[in-house]
Parts: sequence; C-alpha cells; structure tokens
Amino acid sequence: MADGLRVGVVGATGQVGAVMRKLLAEREFPIAELRYFASARSAGSKLPWRDTEITIEDASTADPSGLDIALFSAGGSTSKAQAPRFAAAGVTVIDNSSAFRMDPDVPLVVSEVNPEAVKEARKGIIANPNCTTIAAMPVLKPLHDEAGLVRLVASTYQAVSGSGLAGVDELAGQVRAAAEHASLLTHDGAAIDFPKPEKYVRPIAFNVLPMAGSIVDDGEFETDEEKKFRNESRKILSIPGLAVSCTCVRVPVFSGHSVSVNAEFERPLSVERATELLTHAPGVELSEEPTPLQAAGNDPSYVGRIRVDPGVEGGRGLALFLSNDNLRKGAALNAIQIAELVAQQL
Amino acid sequence: MADGLRVGVVGATGQVGAVMRKLLAEREFPIAELRYFASARSAGSKLPWRDTEITIEDASTADPSGLDIALFSAGGSTSKAQAPRFAAAGVTVIDNSSAFRMDPDVPLVVSEVNPEAVKEARKGIIANPNCTTIAAMPVLKPLHDEAGLVRLVASTYQAVSGSGLAGVDELAGQVRAAAEHASLLTHDGAAIDFPKPEKYVRPIAFNVLPMAGSIVDDGEFETDEEKKFRNESRKILSIPGLAVSCTCVRVPVFSGHSVSVNAEFERPLSVERATELLTHAPGVELSEEPTPLQAAGNDPSYVGRIRVDPGVEGGRGLALFLSNDNLRKGAALNAIQIAELVAQQL
Repeated sequence: MADGLRVGVVGATGQVGAVMRKLLAEREFPIAELRYFASARSAGSKLPWRDTEITIEDASTADPSGLDIALFSAGGSTSKAQAPRFAAAGVTVIDNSSAFRMDPDVPLVVSEVNPEAVKEARKGIIANPNCTTIAAMPVLKPLHDEAGLVRLVASTYQAVSGSGLAGVDELAGQVRAAAEHASLLTHDGAAIDFPKPEKYVRPIAFNVLPMAGSIVDDGEFETDEEKKFRNESRKILSIPGLAVSCTCVRVPVFSGHSVSVNAEFERPLSVERATELLTHAPGVELSEEPTPLQAAGNDPSYVGRIRVDPGVEGGRGLALFLSNDNLRKGAALNAIQIAELVAQQL
Repeated sequence: MADGLRVGVVGATGQVGAVMRKLLAEREFPIAELRYFASARSAGSKLPWRDTEITIEDASTADPSGLDIALFSAGGSTSKAQAPRFAAAGVTVIDNSSAFRMDPDVPLVVSEVNPEAVKEARKGIIANPNCTTIAAMPVLKPLHDEAGLVRLVASTYQAVSGSGLAGVDELAGQVRAAAEHASLLTHDGAAIDFPKPEKYVRPIAFNVLPMAGSIVDDGEFETDEEKKFRNESRKILSIPGLAVSCTCVRVPVFSGHSVSVNAEFERPLSVERATELLTHAPGVELSEEPTPLQAAGNDPSYVGRIRVDPGVEGGRGLALFLSNDNLRKGAALNAIQIAELVAQQL
C-alpha cells in the first residue's frame, strides 16, 4: 500500500455514508483513490472529498475492479446483490448491513474486541455489527476476559437516527408540531395530536416505543433487533452459549444508543475491579452518568453506573449503563477501523 | 359515612394535588365536606371544586379536627411535620411522600395488590408507594401468586412529571429552544446548545439520564429511586428476600413511567399462562406495545412484550414491558383508591 489504498464508499449519499466520508478525512485514512457509489437515482451527481468533488457511480452497474476496499452502507438488499460482485472482483468488502453477519465464512468484527477475525474473510466480506451490539462489545469484552460472561439482560434506549434519516425527520417534525402549539407541551402527553406517524407505528416525540425493529415470526415474540443483539454478541465474543434477554426500545433521542445491562459471570467480579478494567479498555471511557448527548459526535462507548446485581449469588453479577454514538462507532467508525485493520494486511 | 366523608387535600395546588381534585370529582368520591391545604404562601387563595370554590388553608397551622381522611401530596418535609399532627387529631392520613413508607407501623398499599393492609394503620397513616413501584405492582402480583417471584431486573423510562412541574417546564423549555433554531433539530444532538439546566444536572431534551434520583451514600452506588423500587416491592408483595437490581432512567417524556422487567420465579411460568393471568388482573390492560402516551390520562398499567427469558433455567424467567400514568395511578389515583378502601371501613 505504498501510496495508499483504492477505496469505495457504497451508499455514499446516506446518513452513515456521510459520516464515513467525514471520518475517512478526519482519520487521514491512506487513500490513493476514492470512489463513491449509490443508487441509480443519485448516479452522476457529485459529493465533496477534501477540496475536490467525486462523481457518484451506480452501485449496481459500475465496475469495481481495481478497488482494494469497499465500505458498504446502502441497506441489506444492495449488500446482498452487490457485495458478492465486488468481492468477486477482488475487493475486500466491509459491510454495514445485516446480510452476512451470521455467515460462518464472514467475520463479524468490532475493532477493539476481535481484530484478529479480519484474517478469516473467506468470502472477501467482513461484516460490521448492529449499532446496539457495537456499543456494548468494547465494554463487555474486558469483563468477559476477566470473569467469563454467561448471561446478559439488556434494555436499550435507541436513537431515531438508527432508523435512518426518516426517523430523524419524523422526530423533528413531531417536535416542531408540538412546539408550535404551546398547549401541546403539557404534562398530559395524551393531549398531543401529532401528524400521522410514517416511519414508526406510533408517535416517537415525548414517547418511548418498546418494539424497536419487527417481531420475528418464530413464536419467541422477539424483534429482529433483539435477536441481532443476542446472536452477534455470541459470535463477536466467541461465547456460543451466552444467554441473552434483550428489550429494544426506541426513545426520542436524535443520536446515541444507550443500553442498561445486567451481566452475570462465571467468576466473581467486583465493582472496583470492573471499573479498573474499563479504565484501561480500548474504545471505552468511564462516565459518572453516560448519556447519548455525551456520546454524540464522539468515538468511545461511555460507561458508568457500575453496581453489584444482588440477584446473582457469589458476587458474580454487575449492572451498568452505557452510551455510544450509533452513527460513528455504531456504524461508520467501526467500519473504517475494520478497513484500517485490513490496510495493515495489504 | 351516611352523608359522605370529610376530606382534606394537602398540597392542593401541586401537580399531583390537581389530579387528586380532578379524580375526587370524576370518581364521585362520597364527600360531605372538602378542605384544601397548601403552604402559607398559597393560603387564602381559592381553587375550584365542582361549581364552587374552596379557600386554601395553611397546612402548618390549620386545625384538622373533624376530617375523616387527609390526602397528603406536599413533599416529604410537609408530610413529616404535618401528617402526625393530622393523625393525632383522628384523621386517617394517606401520604404520597416517601416519609413513612418503610415504617413497620405504616401500611404501604397498592389498592389492587394488598388492600387488606389498610387495616394495619397503627399510626393513623397509610403510605402511597413511589410511582415507579406502583406501575409494576399490579402486573407482578398475579405472576407472583402463580409462580413465586424471587428476582427482578428492571430498567425504567421515567417521565419528567415525576420530578414535578419543574421537570415538565425544563423539558418544555429545552424543546422550545431547540425548535426555534431549526438547525438544532439535527441528527448530531451534540450540536444542541441548550439553556443551562436547573432541575436536572444535564439536558433532558433529546437525551436520557441514567441517574434518576440521587446516589445514596452507602457504598452501593444506587439512587434513592432504585432503593425505593427494591424496598417498596418487597414490602407490598410481602417478599422480604426479593432480589432486585433496578436502573432508574429519566427520559424526555412528559407523562407516563415505563419499566422493562426481567422476572425470575420459583416455579415455571409460560408466556401463555402469564398472558392469561394478566388478562384478568385488576388495574392491568394488555397492550401489543405499551407506551407512555398510551398510558397518559388513563388508569391501568399497560403491559406487553411478554417473552421467555432464556437466561433462567426451567422456564422460570419472563421479560415484559409496562407503562403507567405516573400522576394518576402512580400518585393521585392510588391515593384515592386507598381512601375508597378506608371509606368502606368507616
């Protein structure tokens, strides 16, 4: 990689694509050539790169030959259709969708947690985990290494930007509608008559929606989001038998996913020892009261409220709370950190 | 109680006092005489009652003699100072503060859960539980009766009206400030420059604050709100050894407290059986997706998202989510339901 790498951003016009473009510049990723890809609708228009502009190519027809790495964030169906085509052309694909995450030939990587897995990309594809999973992994990994994680109970507080720009627009629109009618900003939330929601089934402003994602039709009454948290945690931490109960809840926050976690370990783990481990953990920053506003725009998973869970015998249970920027580390940043790991190998 | 009872509302000018006055009328509580009490500052002014008005008396100096029942919702210090004085005058005090909740001579009552306890008011005082506890009790009681509750893990989503009108005003003010600057309603929440918070330590708009209440200085790093949930649940359900880990989180919702609960039982309890029990439970309504906006202005605890917790062996674990109006059932309504139980005895 003498003069840098040839990199493609697929889904360059989207919310995560925009953060990827920003982070590639911020982190001074070694770039010899940069190409942008999006849907046919956007092809031909331009987006900035440093002090120049790059013309967007149609992801479904462009020839990817010559690229070293392609960062995909254009949705599951684009990934399913195009990622294998890019990989067949010799491009290492880093995919932000859920399309390949559970494929045994596709590593699922959080850069601080299991960087060595990038070497096992037998299909030329490396998957980036779901944003909620990414937030929790850098915190749980050092605790697992110390005491052996066996069970998680998690309740999430997920930002609307996790649903894309449509989620952001819906919250902003409902908040504006309420603010324009002063009487709607009242303690009696039921009086608020919002415009009909489109992105979510119910209003998200001044509300919480405890069914983030869609119920999976397997009789377990869990959402796809909840299953991702379980299955991806097991794969990333290499704990196939990890017991996970997760409740995924959307909250009226623009950016920053938070998770309230109760963790049970094989061996005792004190609050003091956990705090010490997390002080030195990569990608983690301790915080008295971690909040999504603190996390938004920053890289680390902020963690705090570390307490004993008295429901687990033998001092083997901890409760904690964490917040992380779902668009940065939860999506774009981790993808680029994976690309940095790949670059070291090329 | 031939012609009804003589009732006092102490803290009549407050947020919960207002809901109490509304509910006394709505529920056609048998009232022979109604008196309003508040601080010296409000004494002499008037508040409506049906088509008349009632002059507010100074709670600290007025003579309570002749009252049958006094509903207290004027904060812990007023309760501590005045509730014993009212009780000594022969008035049955129903106290909404935390002042007497853990007193062994003071019953702590949720009307659907332990109504028989009102008979044990050996000090003439009956305590109304904390709003978050009240929300969960009508849901957990029938499950406990069936399968024997032994452990709870709970994460809350608490509305700002739980912090009084100051919490409501602070959220409304921050939302207005953001809405007036369109650029502040952005996916990058960190860009929002709110006026300095007063009620909460950090901004509550577009944020979640995982330290509702204040840390208790006993080395456990729990807030008073989290300890209330544990201690009150144990007392109301008569399970002294109930293991509870609770994380109390404030969310930008005006009214309606929600709780994500993982419950462990002595005996197996299926999703189907739990759903059947909750269908018939008093004060409970099943909901596909319980939300605070659904609960606000209504009486029941809405419960849904009932699933198996695979982390508990033998089918003895369930996850569920519930929402309840923290000003109605969570405060004013339960107090008046306790008064109705007392009225049946008089």
